[in-house]
Amino acid sequence: MCQEFFGFEGNIIDASNWESLYDTAQAQLDADKWSEQVLEQSGIEAVFLTNDFDDSLQGFDTNVYIPCLRTDDLVFHLANQEVRNRLEAATNTSLDSITDLRNAVAALFTHFKTNNAKACAISLPPSFSPSKISDAQATTALEQILAQGTEAEASHIAAMASWMFWTITQQCETHQLPFDLMIGVNRQVYPNGVFQGQDLYDSRVSLIQYQELLNAFPTVTFPISVLASVTNQELASYAWIFPNVVTHGHWWYSNTPTFIEHDTAARLEAVPQTKQIGYYSDMYKLEFALPKFRMYKRILSKVLAERYVIDRNWSEQRAIEFGSKILRGNVESVFDV
Amino acid sequence: MCQEFFGFEGNIIDASNWESLYDTAQAQLDADKWSEQVLEQSGIEAVFLTNDFDDSLQGFDTNVYIPCLRTDDLVFHLANQEVRNRLEAATNTSLDSITDLRNAVAALFTHFKTNNAKACAISLPPSFSPSKISDAQATTALEQILAQGTEAEASHIAAMASWMFWTITQQCETHQLPFDLMIGVNRQVYPNGVFQGQDLYDSRVSLIQYQELLNAFPTVTFPISVLASVTNQELASYAWIFPNVVTHGHWWYSNTPTFIEHDTAARLEAVPQTKQIGYYSDMYKLEFALPKFRMYKRILSKVLAERYVIDRNWSEQRAIEFGSKILRGNVESVFDV
Amino acid sequence: MCQEFFGFEGNIIDASNWESLYDTAQAQLDADKWSEQVLEQSGIEAVFLTNDFDDSLQGFDTNVYIPCLRTDDLVFHLANQEVRNRLEAATNTSLDSITDLRNAVAALFTHFKTNNAKACAISLPPSFSPSKISDAQATTALEQILAQGTEAEASHIAAMASWMFWTITQQCETHQLPFDLMIGVNRQVYPNGVFQGQDLYDSRVSLIQYQELLNAFPTVTFPISVLASVTNQELASYAWIFPNVVTHGHWWYSNTPTFIEHDTAARLEAVPQTKQIGYYSDMYKLEFALPKFRMYKRILSKVLAERYVIDRNWSEQRAIEFGSKILRGNVESVFDV
Repeated sequence: MCQEFFGFEGNIIDASNWESLYDTAQAQLDADKWSEQVLEQSGIEAVFLTNDFDDSLQGFDTNVYIPCLRTDDLVFHLANQEVRNRLEAATNTSLDSITDLRNAVAALFTHFKTNNAKACAISLPPSFSPSKISDAQATTALEQILAQGTEAEASHIAAMASWMFWTITQQCETHQLPFDLMIGVNRQVYPNGVFQGQDLYDSRVSLIQYQELLNAFPTVTFPISVLASVTNQELASYAWIFPNVVTHGHWWYSNTPTFIEHDTAARLEAVPQTKQIGYYSDMYKLEFALPKFRMYKRILSKVLAERYVIDRNWSEQRAIEFGSKILRGNVESVFDV
Repeated sequence: MCQEFFGFEGNIIDASNWESLYDTAQAQLDADKWSEQVLEQSGIEAVFLTNDFDDSLQGFDTNVYIPCLRTDDLVFHLANQEVRNRLEAATNTSLDSITDLRNAVAALFTHFKTNNAKACAISLPPSFSPSKISDAQATTALEQILAQGTEAEASHIAAMASWMFWTITQQCETHQLPFDLMIGVNRQVYPNGVFQGQDLYDSRVSLIQYQELLNAFPTVTFPISVLASVTNQELASYAWIFPNVVTHGHWWYSNTPTFIEHDTAARLEAVPQTKQIGYYSDMYKLEFALPKFRMYKRILSKVLAERYVIDRNWSEQRAIEFGSKILRGNVESVFDV
Repeated sequence: MCQEFFGFEGNIIDASNWESLYDTAQAQLDADKWSEQVLEQSGIEAVFLTNDFDDSLQGFDTNVYIPCLRTDDLVFHLANQEVRNRLEAATNTSLDSITDLRNAVAALFTHFKTNNAKACAISLPPSFSPSKISDAQATTALEQILAQGTEAEASHIAAMASWMFWTITQQCETHQLPFDLMIGVNRQVYPNGVFQGQDLYDSRVSLIQYQELLNAFPTVTFPISVLASVTNQELASYAWIFPNVVTHGHWWYSNTPTFIEHDTAARLEAVPQTKQIGYYSDMYKLEFALPKFRMYKRILSKVLAERYVIDRNWSEQRAIEFGSKILRGNVESVFDV
């Protein structure tokens, strides 16, 4: 990244050179149209965002920065008064009943769809196992949450989360939006860590927890990513068996090619070609895309060369077409862009 | 398979050639002695079956199609009236007591042993953890099941399953039959799937669940296969520690060489040479054996070449002998053929 | 080992040569200063022991055989009268209260620190999840254990274990000793096995079980090893997020290079350079170090050559420095030797 964008000529950043690198980088970042230049230099046509549910989605080109509705707060933090206030404000609704809630969620989807949203997204803790909750049970849960907030009993908070997750999935069905699931994250395991350096995961998770959901919504596409490499085989198997599951490339560590190479090779072999998206990554900064995708493309090329062109005697052309589908074609068809 | 058996000359089956391939294949399948020809061309001397417990085992050469007693129905579906009817009919017994049940199971084993059976087999859900159940508890469970069938309480159905599994293992002990365990399958996760396209597995399983069983039956050989690659290391360790455990080569995906290569290499290194059977696979169709075994033999050759001949400086002869033992010699000694 | 130490010239030990090898080895083992010769020939300057808590630590050079306090008995077997007797004898204390126990543990640490101890160590079953226990709860648990020994209720024995583990960690904090955790072992799964051939592990373990501990003791360094390869990714992630976690190289099978190679490559990529110790192994016999470390060094060289010098265009010098840090430099800094 530093070599490409900031003219860095060394191999290691250390005490001897970080200051000059910092100055050069800062000058570039301050330049006019820097973000456009990064996009162009990186070969990026568009970026998928994950927007807070109350984002106005105004002030940027939604064909370049494509909105996606992030629903973590709605599902897991509705007991928090501030979240309910934000939802009321965003939808101009008073949240007194399950019907109000359902209407508010529908309003969010309409707002996002109107602004070119291409997906709904959520990250899920390893213990989460979605199931359909009756409106009667949800009504009781909502009453308790309205009365006691985050002090409500854990069972009510869990029931509300399940109901909300199911309701959101119904909206994905109505609006034909794919629902991105990132399964397995534990938040704030190390609360003293830096921002985005506090979370971990639990490798003891199984996609059997999603059996009821995947069967209940056959017309919703679920691009699924898992945090732990050990869950990769289950994910590949589920994508093979369930028509509505797509493997979504994401790994906890973008800097661990060993896991990515192993998991990518297994997916190429096990998952139907049209049902896998090779790679996506939390970019955090626009400049991260270029090195991250180069890393992935290097790994993908290695796997295709070794396991397909050499081992299986494929033509290079056929391998490249496979790679293009994984990297780009499937993104276009799954997310309708 | 299509190239070898049906004269297919292309590399990809698509809209342009599937019809002529279909016609050619159908003509071959209709030919006289086609199955004998497939066996000969595939280099197959015999095939291990998994037969329903009420199979008459008549009408085929049991030296070529070797019977094995499949016990899933007995262990997991005895609450089903139809299964009990089949068991009564097959053994000419009325199932009114635990003693009747035990005698019926013994009769099945005698029938199978008389017809050249070489193994007993079962597939097990990830939650199953066998333990010894007293006859008193089993009597209560049987009474409930006879009265209420599949509506009996889950605890009674589970107790019956444990008792039946233990009783079957005792028969394996008496008749010196290996008991094939395929551990980890979840049935009908996607009920709308095609036949044999509905099952999945749960990678959260541990062989510690089989501790009591493996210790209780030291003279029964247990060839064990696991569905998830992540359980492979545990299986290799158990085969190293327990004298009566043999690793049985089977993978959920026969089309995922990445997993098979990794797991095969680890087993070659970790498991005593006489205690691993390299590969078996649900064939479904006789024609599948040739491509499936070729795939495995290619992987095995690669592992032996890279990790033994090159890395460890073994002679090619020694590596080939190792491979032959894994592929064939151990099958003969474990299953007494 | 036999080639290096006992002049063995073949490649395979079998019926034709084991007796002469045995005789040669025995003659060597009986020779004067054999252990010094093994150390020298193996290039070993010092060995980390794991000593029983009541070891006198006398009669050997603690700069060559470095003491470490093994605490399994204290945490998991305090209900055993013999263990309490040993603790009373070693610390010259009567164990009547929590305060007595705390003082006894403190006395052990002083004894070990005075004798050049460089670490505290323990192996932990997969179910263990340490948490802080109040002195009041611990007092009740101790009373029950003093009255009923190993017949005390499981909940009291578990509370005592948690309290003792926490108390030991507090002593590590006071004495600035690293606390080696070996996570996941199940003892005596196959009770009829030979000595050190009875234990196994459960791959269903997560480091989330150690969240409270790792947050509560930020100044204690925890070198952590896990038994199952499938837990390796979690360990690497925890070492990345938590400043006080170091990955400690140990694998259940020292004879399974496939796992070690995969796990080593992933750690090199994912864990900060100063926070990983490449390899340690239960030596059991002094002669085992040479072949075990050669195996590891071969694997490490392969990973560095393929993944760093070739894939990442590192200079050989830089790769060698990385390897040296993993193998030796970090041992010196983490254990203060």
